[in-house]
Amino acid sequence: MIVARARANANVALAKYWGKRDEALNLPFTGSISVTLDGLETHVSLALVPRSSSDRVRMNGAPALAAEAQRVSRFLDLVRAQAHAATRVEVDLESNFPVAAGLASSASTFAALALASNRAFGLDLSPEQLSVLARRGSGSAARSIHGGFVEWLAGEAADGLDSRAVQVAPAHHWSIGIVVAVTDEGRKKVGSREGMAIAARESPFFRAWLETHAADAAAIRSGIWARDLLLVGEAAEHNCLKMHAASLAARPSLLYWTPATVAVIHRVRELRADGLEAYFTIDAGPQVKVLCRAEDRAQVAEQIARVPGVRRVLLSAPGPGAEVLATR
Amino acid sequence: MIVARARANANVALAKYWGKRDEALNLPFTGSISVTLDGLETHVSLALVPRSSSDRVRMNGAPALAAEAQRVSRFLDLVRAQAHAATRVEVDLESNFPVAAGLASSASTFAALALASNRAFGLDLSPEQLSVLARRGSGSAARSIHGGFVEWLAGEAADGLDSRAVQVAPAHHWSIGIVVAVTDEGRKKVGSREGMAIAARESPFFRAWLETHAADAAAIRSGIWARDLLLVGEAAEHNCLKMHAASLAARPSLLYWTPATVAVIHRVRELRADGLEAYFTIDAGPQVKVLCRAEDRAQVAEQIARVPGVRRVLLSAPGPGAEVLATR
Repeated sequence: MIVARARANANVALAKYWGKRDEALNLPFTGSISVTLDGLETHVSLALVPRSSSDRVRMNGAPALAAEAQRVSRFLDLVRAQAHAATRVEVDLESNFPVAAGLASSASTFAALALASNRAFGLDLSPEQLSVLARRGSGSAARSIHGGFVEWLAGEAADGLDSRAVQVAPAHHWSIGIVVAVTDEGRKKVGSREGMAIAARESPFFRAWLETHAADAAAIRSGIWARDLLLVGEAAEHNCLKMHAASLAARPSLLYWTPATVAVIHRVRELRADGLEAYFTIDAGPQVKVLCRAEDRAQVAEQIARVPGVRRVLLSAPGPGAEVLATR
Repeated sequence: MIVARARANANVALAKYWGKRDEALNLPFTGSISVTLDGLETHVSLALVPRSSSDRVRMNGAPALAAEAQRVSRFLDLVRAQAHAATRVEVDLESNFPVAAGLASSASTFAALALASNRAFGLDLSPEQLSVLARRGSGSAARSIHGGFVEWLAGEAADGLDSRAVQVAPAHHWSIGIVVAVTDEGRKKVGSREGMAIAARESPFFRAWLETHAADAAAIRSGIWARDLLLVGEAAEHNCLKMHAASLAARPSLLYWTPATVAVIHRVRELRADGLEAYFTIDAGPQVKVLCRAEDRAQVAEQIARVPGVRRVLLSAPGPGAEVLATR
C-alpha cells in the first residue's frame, strides 16, 4: 500500500483574491500576493486502498463532514483522471490551527493534498503544475505550494494552465512579524466562494475593485523586494478595505466583521499613531492578521491580545512552502 | 431689543448626502432623502445687540468653542448681507440630545438659526429660501426646515439657489418607529465635512457611489409614498453601506464604526431574521438609527439597548419641521 505524507502552510493574502472569472476552474479576475504562514500547518496523509469503492476522509481525527469529504474526493478525481487511475484513498487531514475559528484551512489542505496525491499516484508534477492542481481544490491553495512571499498570476488561458503561483521572494528575504488575532467567531458566515460570487455579481463597486487592484499588487511586490513595511502595509490595508467595501456594497450586503474585528482595526491604527509600525489585513472572515517588524512582534501580539473580543493570538512569520514528508 | 426664538429637529438621511460639488456653498453631487426626528430638538434664541462689535454664541449654557462660534458667526454674516445690516447678536443654542455623543446637531442648529435670524433681521424668506439659507450653514440643515419625510434636491445652478429641500410626505403620512442607538463614542473622528471631501477625492468607489445613488433615492421616495417599510429599509441600508464602503476604500481610509456599531448591525439583521422588521442606517459617526414599524418600536428599542456597547437608546418618529416659537 502506497502512503504519502505532505505538509503545507496556510497563507494570508496582502493583495487579495476576490472574484472568479471561471467558477468551475477557480480562475481569478486578478492576481494576488500572499505570505505563507510559518507554524500554521496542515498535514495530509494519503493511502491508496485499491479494494475500496469510495474515498474515506478524516479531519483532525474524526470523519469529515459530507460536504468536506466530497470536496476532497472531487479534487482526488482530478488527480486520478490525470493518472489514468481509479484507486480510492484514505486521507487524514490534520491542521494545527483553529479551523473552527474561521481561519482558512482550505489553502493549506489542498496544497498538501496536491503534493501527497501527486506522489501517491506517481504524477511527477513540477512545482508550477502542482500550483495549478492545488488551485482546482481551492484558489488560494495555489499560493501555499510556495514559501515566503508568493504571487498567484491570474493567467489568461481558458483552461487555466497559466493560472499558477510563483515565488516573489523566499521567507529568509524578509523576516516580518505576523500576528493572527482570532476573534469571536459569532454567527454563521458566508464562505469566500459564495461571498466573492455575490460581490462580483451584485456590487456596484466591483468593477472599480478590479480596475484598481493591479496598482496595489505592484506596490506590494515592490515593497516586498525593497523590504519596505510602510509601502507593503499601506497597500495591503487599502487592498483589504476595498475588498471588504466592495462586499459591503453588494446586495445582499456581506459584512465579515465582528465587533472585535473593528476593535483590532482601531487598535492597529492606534499602535501606528504611537509609533509601533503595524498594519492589518482581513480575509473573508472575522480574523485579523497584523503585519509588523520582526522585532516588534511580541509587543504587537501583547497589545492585540488585550483587545476586547480577541480570544487568542497566533505568532507567525514568512514560512516554508509545501513539502512531501514521507512516502512508503 | 429684538429677540427671536426658533426650534428645529435633527434628521436622519435614508438616502445619504455624501460629497459636495461646491465646498463653499455646500452644494451636493446628489439629492438626499431624510426623516425629521421627533423629540431631537435644538432651540435657538437670538437677540440683536446693536452696540456690540462681535457675536456671542452660547451652546447648552456655556460659551461655544471658538470654531463653533465662528461657524455660527459666518452664517449670520450671510443673513446680515441679505438684510443689509451689520448688527451683532447674542445666540443661545440648546439641544436636548447628546451632542457630545456624536449625534449631528448641525442640521437642527442651522435650520433653527435660519428661522430665528430670518425673523430677527426681517428678511421674510419663504420656506424654500429658508432651506437654501440653512444649507449654507450645514448641508443637512436644508432638510430640517421641513417635517416628516424630506428630499433635498441637489439642484443645478452654480449659485445654489435651486439646491433646497422639499417635503416628500408629512409626518402623519407614515408613523414609522425610529430607534437611535448611541454607542460608545471612542476616538476622535473625522467630521462629515472632511470625510466627504476625502471620499470624493480619494475613493476609487466614489464614482460608482454617485452613479447608483438616484436608484436608491427613487426606491426610498416611492417606498415612503407607499408606506412600504421593506422597500425603504432595504434601499436605505444599501445606500448607507455604500456610503461607508466608499469611505472605507478611500486613502486615507475612513472607518466611522466602533465595535458597538457592528454589533448593532448584526443585531438588526438577527431581529429581521427572527421576523421583527427592522433596518439600520448610519451617518458619519458610530451611532446607528434603526427603522421599524411604529408598533414594534418599544420591542426594537429593548433589543437594541441590550447590545454590548450601546450606552442608551432614544425613541423617535417622523417629527415636525422647524418653527419660530416667539418674537419679542
